[in-house]
Amino acid sequence: MSEVRVHNFTVSLDGYATGEGQSLESPFGHAGGRLMEWFFGTRTFREMHGEGGGTGVDERFACDWNADVGAEIMGRHKFGPQRGPWTDEQWQGWWGDNPPFHTPVFVLTHHPRPSIEMKGGTTFHFVDASPARALAMATEAADGRDVRIGGGPTTVRQFLAADLVDRMHIAVAPLFLGRGVRLWDGLEGLEQRFAIEPVTSPSGVTHLSFTRR
Amino acid sequence: MSEVRVHNFTVSLDGYATGEGQSLESPFGHAGGRLMEWFFGTRTFREMHGEGGGTGVDERFACDWNADVGAEIMGRHKFGPQRGPWTDEQWQGWWGDNPPFHTPVFVLTHHPRPSIEMKGGTTFHFVDASPARALAMATEAADGRDVRIGGGPTTVRQFLAADLVDRMHIAVAPLFLGRGVRLWDGLEGLEQRFAIEPVTSPSGVTHLSFTRR
Ligand SMILES: NC(=O)c1ccc[n+]([C@@H]2O[C@H](COP(=O)([O-])OP(=O)(O)OC[C@H]3O[C@@H](n4cnc5c(N)ncnc54)[C@H](OP(=O)(O)O)[C@@H]3O)[C@@H](O)[C@H]2O)c1
Ligand SMILES: NC(=O)c1ccc[n+]([C@@H]2O[C@H](COP(=O)([O-])OP(=O)(O)OC[C@H]3O[C@@H](n4cnc5c(N)ncnc54)[C@H](OP(=O)(O)O)[C@@H]3O)[C@@H](O)[C@H]2O)c1
Repeated sequence: MSEVRVHNFTVSLDGYATGEGQSLESPFGHAGGRLMEWFFGTRTFREMHGEGGGTGVDERFACDWNADVGAEIMGRHKFGPQRGPWTDEQWQGWWGDNPPFHTPVFVLTHHPRPSIEMKGGTTFHFVDASPARALAMATEAADGRDVRIGGGPTTVRQFLAADLVDRMHIAVAPLFLGRGVRLWDGLEGLEQRFAIEPVTSPSGVTHLSFTRR
Repeated sequence: MSEVRVHNFTVSLDGYATGEGQSLESPFGHAGGRLMEWFFGTRTFREMHGEGGGTGVDERFACDWNADVGAEIMGRHKFGPQRGPWTDEQWQGWWGDNPPFHTPVFVLTHHPRPSIEMKGGTTFHFVDASPARALAMATEAADGRDVRIGGGPTTVRQFLAADLVDRMHIAVAPLFLGRGVRLWDGLEGLEQRFAIEPVTSPSGVTHLSFTRR
């Protein structure tokens, strides 16, 4: 059975998965790169840039993100900083011409636009759809492989609320962002649907594994 | 130097330190006893009831709460479920006639009332004061020993905001309460003032040690 997965998704100790004030220069707003610092040290991240990196606990979690994934679903604010109707369609995401996904990616938006085929196998599709419908499309595109819910928090939260996630890796970073978008709002009783296993890392991050009961 | 300490203070993964709807029957509102389950198994808790208990990681944290503490400061909602002016002054707290504090306890309230001397050395004083002023009183009463900030979240948050806490033990329980009173609101940048060390326990709780930098 193919699974619906969340990986390397990071929240601050006070629950924010992104800061306030996203812009072209700062995809995470006032949070900057701080949330993902644990990830930047891992081999998984550094190999994307042709370098070596850590192979410890953080890497054990980081490296799992892409294995057997056949499609991703992301929210429009993960794709870019634009709001409202597209004023031009030049923007192709934060990742350059060869994005790290290498699969179909379904971007949830109330403002659909034509699909974009990138180098390396990534195609962005823009869909105005409920979580369940978007998942049906992604599942078909994944062709037997798993579907990753890529974020941001608004998107992950929707899929959790609709009970569509099978397993999830959340990293809790020892930071207090104070403002931004929270992941956990409105998820009372989530522990009844998931076994939750915390593991700490020398980086100061606590990795939480959620496995559907 | 005497220290200002927080111990065994527990929040859910979504950040709540108490549920909604506190009443005489349920001090933690809809959260019930779930937040403190890790604590109920420890020797520290069970010895208060004449029984044995766990001596592992949870106990290592639990047992530290009272050593060298000469006074506690608590908020009025930790003391009782009443709101507004006292309608009678019969209420003497949740803990029976011999409360577990055995020191002066300063209860923050906008509705002061006469002090209550209990068995076993606990005296409740009711004070309408800023965190700094309440701490000055408690420090004097503690007579060289430490002062514990006992909760609830509204009270701990005030002392953190005023930068009056030296060390703090927060337990994060694998629960999603969804509603209640959050601990972490408005504490952006707290990691700059504290070194934060997480440790997980087989109970599923993550213990966070905050030490002033
Ligand atoms: N912490 C992490 O690990 C992590 C991971 C990924 C991303 N991020 C960060 O998270 C931030 C983005 O998160 P976010 O919560 O602000 O937004 P998001 O989840 O990326 O996107 C939300 C937006 O997507 C569109 N959308 C979402 N669901 C939809 C649906 N069912 N139907 C139609 N449109 C839908 C809406 O935009 P429109 O109405 O404008 O179309 C909505 O405002 C970015 O800063 C990103 O860098 C963090
Ligand atoms: N999770 C844990 O480890 C833990 C630990 C302890 C307690 N708790 C729970 O936490 C809950 C209580 O927390 P809470 O945040 O609701 O309230 P709280 O902090 O116990 O008390 C807040 C109240 O105390 C009074 N107060 C606070 N600061 C004051 C000041 N500077 N000057 C004057 N009055 C002040 C005000 O009441 P008035 O205006 O009415 O006087 C205020 O509404 C209870 O459910 C308790 O069981 C949890």
